[in-house]
Amino acid sequence: MTMMKAAIFVAPGRIELADKRIPEVGPNDALVRITTTTICGTDIHILKGEYPVAKGLTIGHEPVGIIEKLGSAVTGYREGQRVIAGAICPNFNSYAAQDGVPSQDGSYLIDSGRCGCHGYKATAGWRFGNLINGTQAEYVLVPDAQGNLAPIPDGLSDEQVLMCPDIMSTGFRGAENANIRIGDVVAVFAQGPIGLCATAGARLLGASTIIAIDGNAHRLGIAKAMGADITLNIHECDVVDEVMKLTGGRGVDASIEALGTQGTFESALRVLKPGGTLSSLGVYSTDLTIPLSAFAAGLGDHRINTALCPGGKERMRRLMDVVASGRADFGALVTHHFKLDDIVAAYELFGHQRDGVLKVAIKPG
Amino acid sequence: MTMMKAAIFVAPGRIELADKRIPEVGPNDALVRITTTTICGTDIHILKGEYPVAKGLTIGHEPVGIIEKLGSAVTGYREGQRVIAGAICPNFNSYAAQDGVPSQDGSYLIDSGRCGCHGYKATAGWRFGNLINGTQAEYVLVPDAQGNLAPIPDGLSDEQVLMCPDIMSTGFRGAENANIRIGDVVAVFAQGPIGLCATAGARLLGASTIIAIDGNAHRLGIAKAMGADITLNIHECDVVDEVMKLTGGRGVDASIEALGTQGTFESALRVLKPGGTLSSLGVYSTDLTIPLSAFAAGLGDHRINTALCPGGKERMRRLMDVVASGRADFGALVTHHFKLDDIVAAYELFGHQRDGVLKVAIKPG
Amino acid sequence: MTMMKAAIFVAPGRIELADKRIPEVGPNDALVRITTTTICGTDIHILKGEYPVAKGLTIGHEPVGIIEKLGSAVTGYREGQRVIAGAICPNFNSYAAQDGVPSQDGSYLIDSGRCGCHGYKATAGWRFGNLINGTQAEYVLVPDAQGNLAPIPDGLSDEQVLMCPDIMSTGFRGAENANIRIGDVVAVFAQGPIGLCATAGARLLGASTIIAIDGNAHRLGIAKAMGADITLNIHECDVVDEVMKLTGGRGVDASIEALGTQGTFESALRVLKPGGTLSSLGVYSTDLTIPLSAFAAGLGDHRINTALCPGGKERMRRLMDVVASGRADFGALVTHHFKLDDIVAAYELFGHQRDGVLKVAIKPG
Amino acid sequence: MTMMKAAIFVAPGRIELADKRIPEVGPNDALVRITTTTICGTDIHILKGEYPVAKGLTIGHEPVGIIEKLGSAVTGYREGQRVIAGAICPNFNSYAAQDGVPSQDGSYLIDSGRCGCHGYKATAGWRFGNLINGTQAEYVLVPDAQGNLAPIPDGLSDEQVLMCPDIMSTGFRGAENANIRIGDVVAVFAQGPIGLCATAGARLLGASTIIAIDGNAHRLGIAKAMGADITLNIHECDVVDEVMKLTGGRGVDASIEALGTQGTFESALRVLKPGGTLSSLGVYSTDLTIPLSAFAAGLGDHRINTALCPGGKERMRRLMDVVASGRADFGALVTHHFKLDDIVAAYELFGHQRDGVLKVAIKPG
Repeated sequence: MTMMKAAIFVAPGRIELADKRIPEVGPNDALVRITTTTICGTDIHILKGEYPVAKGLTIGHEPVGIIEKLGSAVTGYREGQRVIAGAICPNFNSYAAQDGVPSQDGSYLIDSGRCGCHGYKATAGWRFGNLINGTQAEYVLVPDAQGNLAPIPDGLSDEQVLMCPDIMSTGFRGAENANIRIGDVVAVFAQGPIGLCATAGARLLGASTIIAIDGNAHRLGIAKAMGADITLNIHECDVVDEVMKLTGGRGVDASIEALGTQGTFESALRVLKPGGTLSSLGVYSTDLTIPLSAFAAGLGDHRINTALCPGGKERMRRLMDVVASGRADFGALVTHHFKLDDIVAAYELFGHQRDGVLKVAIKPG
Repeated sequence: MTMMKAAIFVAPGRIELADKRIPEVGPNDALVRITTTTICGTDIHILKGEYPVAKGLTIGHEPVGIIEKLGSAVTGYREGQRVIAGAICPNFNSYAAQDGVPSQDGSYLIDSGRCGCHGYKATAGWRFGNLINGTQAEYVLVPDAQGNLAPIPDGLSDEQVLMCPDIMSTGFRGAENANIRIGDVVAVFAQGPIGLCATAGARLLGASTIIAIDGNAHRLGIAKAMGADITLNIHECDVVDEVMKLTGGRGVDASIEALGTQGTFESALRVLKPGGTLSSLGVYSTDLTIPLSAFAAGLGDHRINTALCPGGKERMRRLMDVVASGRADFGALVTHHFKLDDIVAAYELFGHQRDGVLKVAIKPG
Repeated sequence: MTMMKAAIFVAPGRIELADKRIPEVGPNDALVRITTTTICGTDIHILKGEYPVAKGLTIGHEPVGIIEKLGSAVTGYREGQRVIAGAICPNFNSYAAQDGVPSQDGSYLIDSGRCGCHGYKATAGWRFGNLINGTQAEYVLVPDAQGNLAPIPDGLSDEQVLMCPDIMSTGFRGAENANIRIGDVVAVFAQGPIGLCATAGARLLGASTIIAIDGNAHRLGIAKAMGADITLNIHECDVVDEVMKLTGGRGVDASIEALGTQGTFESALRVLKPGGTLSSLGVYSTDLTIPLSAFAAGLGDHRINTALCPGGKERMRRLMDVVASGRADFGALVTHHFKLDDIVAAYELFGHQRDGVLKVAIKPG
Repeated sequence: MTMMKAAIFVAPGRIELADKRIPEVGPNDALVRITTTTICGTDIHILKGEYPVAKGLTIGHEPVGIIEKLGSAVTGYREGQRVIAGAICPNFNSYAAQDGVPSQDGSYLIDSGRCGCHGYKATAGWRFGNLINGTQAEYVLVPDAQGNLAPIPDGLSDEQVLMCPDIMSTGFRGAENANIRIGDVVAVFAQGPIGLCATAGARLLGASTIIAIDGNAHRLGIAKAMGADITLNIHECDVVDEVMKLTGGRGVDASIEALGTQGTFESALRVLKPGGTLSSLGVYSTDLTIPLSAFAAGLGDHRINTALCPGGKERMRRLMDVVASGRADFGALVTHHFKLDDIVAAYELFGHQRDGVLKVAIKPG
């Protein structure tokens, strides 16, 4: 068997299923047979043509599957093993990775002197469905497999670990980047899948009051289940005023932005105490404005931290341990199931946020 | 003797010398006879009416002097002792101070429930010449003296420690906030007194390449003496292009903004590597824009840190130790001397940056 | 009324109730009428004469009460307000506090040049029942009240906040000092009141596997309720072997020592992964040995952190918020109640750990 | 040409030159022709049989050379390029590396499930001359070359970068691990090559007073040149007393241990302020004792950090940048030159510390 089905980007507005050759396996690669994958908000940007990728590229970056074939230099794994890999699939031998930001450089290309330097390429750790073929297919080739393949612990289902590669890693990084300490008050702006994971992450890290904010009552209900203490509906109150009131004028210790708009970014800054941290997760599509007053004219000892989802086998191992321990359960985020054959319909549902969809599970089998 | 001379804010455009009553000393205060003080860029904002203070307020926040009288509850000092105090003069019993940001709350007022909360007031640690009478006078009342009076080590002159209360503390915090590690490349935008101290601070913290940027060739020359390896004149090159070229396309590990304008802020972000830190020192007077491309759409693992000058006796002790050790010498920044009686002329010179002025020493005696 | 009852240290083996004068209130003090206090393991060391204090000193360092009188310089509180203060009651104006370790210097004495320096005195932030009269009395004088009085939120009972001043602050610091990250495996050695709080703290900070270790089955049961995933009884297994087996030979990410013996310290080191952190809470009474093999000959990238319980109003505010939020409930640790009149009997019970005692509540009223 | 000369461990007391086959190059390897290498104190332990290695193993772990041949999967380098590699040569795809401690696991072996776990092996990142053949030879095989080969900047000689792979990386890590802040007082115990580099590192990181301690007046003289402000000869004073006197009883902010004995470790702890950090670099050969009093019974908020020399191309790049910038110059540490043919004589000189030797340069050519 040499051919497989894959969802490819054809043109703005068109992602379609196509037949592709199953890739060759180089010495540091692994070929993984996908058993479950999913669609991400970023894929919708690709679909709409808002984020450019090469025509014909296989889309998707959240793999759950089985090792089909290991490269000759990859050791410590066995074919037939159930694994995941991070959405961000770094080259841990890069300068960026050794410098503490593996997500910012995932390819050997940079090292090869293409730019004549030791440069990092921003977000270059995101390779699946961006720089190389992705996971919405029967098979995916995992580069730098030694650093990226993470065995699934016994007893965990595909659905239980499906959020680990991206949503959970991103949302948790939002909480990790917020400098949360025991007893903190944290506001999380937007409760889509990533915001919900950020809410759960803030809970996991010891915040004693978590304020979840969104305009969708259903999502706010889920936020409560994920650990929020208070929910605010943007259609029912002035959120900034309400947060200031709830904190007695003090502001929050940390705010997490999980949507990627000027409005959420600005509100996240306006509710922040002097000395507080704004942890930004969103993918913005326009320049951002920092209002002078919210920023104390630059004298507020504020911190603004951004992040790209961490990957790598150690990160994946830890996230799956969190799932296995029962500390967090994101299975409820998987609201719909599709076969790979029906992926166009899945994009249709997910892209329009129909039927209360949060995340879809897509299975080639 | 009950009266003293003091430079007070009269109206926009007018700071004048006036006679004032020497203040009473409460249990936690100290009365300090000023031997040397100086004028800060912020004072010029006050003079111009751009930063509002109460009419009649004594201006100035950089005290060097001698303890004239100690409050009844202040121990461990003696009258006649030479001391400095930070420009930011915190109340270390505040919630903000115990929460790690003493500069953000300096007064008992907040604790007194005025706002019905445990609130921090942004920049409220800056009291001299802002919330209470300042140092451009014959005497200044130091609040919370137990935490703020710092004895001057034997052998250091007034001029040698005159930069400690503000300029040196601010500039060094800019470097401290930049997450500098051994071997880093750091760009410092603007080489006024604070930028020069930031340059010296970056040198002190182990950066191996420091790029100092300004439009004033004289200041760039001083920057070299303070530790810069490379200087760039904004009138002679495209600074962003040049920094990217100097770093082989990689960008700098950290950039320090020391002016407070959109241009310097934006350039500081554009030269930053993914994963790098922008440490902002400037006092901005307009909203800021974060360009999408410079920000990697929020996915660059960037950090933006702002700061207000740290104060307190421990900070001052450390800075004076740095001076005493010869690690840094900011005496050269004091380019002009004035008597307090001539302070209006000093404002005139300093406000218009005439005659190559960097900082002026003002002496009541 | 000028006299009150107080439990004082008379001689090794004798702590007795005595009549004492109610103290005068200086400008920075507050007089607090005790409504509930408790006995700490440290008090037992004092009772036995193992830790020397002045004869006649009032013992106890865990105050819950009502403000009876405020010093003239203390603002933001009102008489009649319910408050707690930390067991460690720092002088936040000290060099040590401004240097980041307020617990290490609590008195003005050090600043006063007694030792001719800016010295810190180790543990000098612990003043109640150590350097000054303590809380096992009808009244206690709180020094540096502006920084140490923490109002009790409405709705919380004395018993609910009784653990905040010491046990909870200490146990949580043990977890905070352990560098816990999401997904960590943490072992906590000893499950007395402090170890139980450390277990709860590790849970609060995102550890995904918590292994609680003790020799007392009852306490191990409580450890499960506090958040432990696995409990090991030292009488039933070789704990080091078992932890290594549970972690597949990898060792734990962090271990917390909560007893103060060579055995627990050594085991905590032996189960630690290279690169891991040993957070030590115990009060040791002998020199410690670091076994060469457990320490990888000094090449294991290990961290050993010790701590003294943090105090101050901001710390207390946060801990009470944790209680109020329902994140942790240490009410179950209060197993017995006594009147202050019966404190000798309370010491008898607590000192011999009779009747399953964990903590006793002592009420003067 | 298939054979080369190499210094191999024969038996305790015997390291000899032998003929060996030039190794095969796997896909992720690089073969480097050594132009300069050196002998480390650790090699003397191996020579004496105190540290066990396999008979026949090539010794040495500090390579400077030229790429002879690159593995098929190694990109971004070219044959003929001058390079160094760290003494510690990690596998950056290991769990340990992704967990922040690359030095603790360098081989694929651990991942391969040999121990049935995701284990780290302490110090396993040290491979050259320990787990695999080392650098005292005409050629060395560099494993995981993509992460470990660091090109030498133009203009730097072999001697100028010879300290980077081990001595400089180790000494600097000692300073980095000491939590040094601007204005700190730091004591460095022992001024061998590593201690001297720690002294230089402390200087580079902003310490304002550096106290260098040794028993060798010559080395103390070099310490001054490396940045020490004060030197203490252990034969001429009670070092602990003297440091306490120099700090006015306060103790040092940080102490660095650079020898590996109970005496230096204990003194480093005794001079430490409460809240201070002991950074330990030494390779110990016996159990260590922590004296109760020096440790404040476990209540001093002390930190003890150990380290293994960091490796990797990014670390090497930074260290070479420090050399290139002129911030530090360790060329003076190279006191003697030998041909590889004379390596037995070099061991003889270095092992007995004859003739004021600090480090020797060994050249196969």
